[in-house]
Amino acid sequence: MRQQPLILITNDDGISAPGILHLSSIAQKFGDVFVIAPDKPQSGMGHAITINSTLRIQKTAHHKSAYAEFSCTGTPVDCVKMAVNKLLPRKPDLVLSGINHGSNSSINVIYSGTMSAAIEGSLEGTSSVGFSLCDYDINADFSATTVFVEKIISSCLKEPLPKGICLNVNFPKLKDDEINGLKICRQAKANWVEDFEERQDPYGRSYYWLTGKFVNFEPEAQDTDEWALKNGYVSVVPIMHDFTAHPYINHLKNTL
Amino acid sequence: MRQQPLILITNDDGISAPGILHLSSIAQKFGDVFVIAPDKPQSGMGHAITINSTLRIQKTAHHKSAYAEFSCTGTPVDCVKMAVNKLLPRKPDLVLSGINHGSNSSINVIYSGTMSAAIEGSLEGTSSVGFSLCDYDINADFSATTVFVEKIISSCLKEPLPKGICLNVNFPKLKDDEINGLKICRQAKANWVEDFEERQDPYGRSYYWLTGKFVNFEPEAQDTDEWALKNGYVSVVPIMHDFTAHPYINHLKNTL
Repeated sequence: MRQQPLILITNDDGISAPGILHLSSIAQKFGDVFVIAPDKPQSGMGHAITINSTLRIQKTAHHKSAYAEFSCTGTPVDCVKMAVNKLLPRKPDLVLSGINHGSNSSINVIYSGTMSAAIEGSLEGTSSVGFSLCDYDINADFSATTVFVEKIISSCLKEPLPKGICLNVNFPKLKDDEINGLKICRQAKANWVEDFEERQDPYGRSYYWLTGKFVNFEPEAQDTDEWALKNGYVSVVPIMHDFTAHPYINHLKNTL
Repeated sequence: MRQQPLILITNDDGISAPGILHLSSIAQKFGDVFVIAPDKPQSGMGHAITINSTLRIQKTAHHKSAYAEFSCTGTPVDCVKMAVNKLLPRKPDLVLSGINHGSNSSINVIYSGTMSAAIEGSLEGTSSVGFSLCDYDINADFSATTVFVEKIISSCLKEPLPKGICLNVNFPKLKDDEINGLKICRQAKANWVEDFEERQDPYGRSYYWLTGKFVNFEPEAQDTDEWALKNGYVSVVPIMHDFTAHPYINHLKNTL
């Protein structure tokens, strides 16, 4: 293997999704691309790992630009752990996740398998980026993402991200010439107001589908990822995996 | 229903686990207890939600102290969403998750279904606490937790936690008289060094079990949850769901 950058790629939509094919085709310009991704869609899996069940991997051939690729029966986080600890010849220089079909901005980061894979990459001590396009369509047009993905890969290879921080990058559903550029943001305060659609199975028993409506609690704030996306920018949010609410520690010391 | 506090209880070990039975028996002293928990163990599920599949719920009768209880085919986060948006008569006053069989201190918070349920509770705008005992044994002794669980429930009902913050409470595996008290801490910098144990199935094909070794990167730091637990304290870490690495935003603005 050439000693050029080693780039690990995964996603949560599955190894043959158009978004990950687009990502690997860009990444191969920067180094050796190793792909391991779920063998089926794993959207909404968050930071789940497989500990009550076994894992299997299989060589696949979806990515022309990868020097090796595997599908895995596990979650996106399992894929990163499996690659880093079992399959890769050395620690990767970059972990890329996506490009997800659908937004992972704001609070979606917490449910996102795509972003959890990137967070896991940063936990393993590697610069990591999750990419998502705000378009759930399987035939979504990823072409406008290329120049920005290239810029971010190039930047992360030149100056690695600090330990414990990864990037959450979301693309608006726009054409090249409609995008205003990159915008560094914070995660918007938002939530899903859920509804559970109740249906009857053919045997008369109830079952439920989780549905919901996204609500941005601060639509006016201009430093959030939601604002950036609505205003034609590619949003970039640095994400950390220290979940401690540091400013609240002192208050708690006085009340508990 | 009496208008006393409404307390929602869930976990990730499943609705009949000893830890959740102990928790509901304590909580009933403070209000009306509503239990909804997974119908099977969901450890390691992180913030996973069920969007590619359906959900079912079923009335159960494991908790003598609950006014209503349901098992759910989904994840811990699904349970909280289902309760808050579909089953409860009003917004709960408190969401409690656990008591987990096994530690959720430090980086374990990211993989933990128990803590994800608590984080989801805080996302829904309710004071939420996840409890875990550092003992994986199904026959673990939960008796030493009682007085601390009572203290924390009482405190959260008296003064609700700020929006967006929940508590991660871990108990050392010690007897009543061996515990030094509560200690407010931050999440220790730590990680799992994974190994994938490779085995052969009866048909000669490889499969893997995820295993690993926990490594605390800062064993000397006395303000972490790991230190507290090792030194006989109950650790309490305030956890937030804004994952933005705020201090890094300005640097990123200059480099990307």
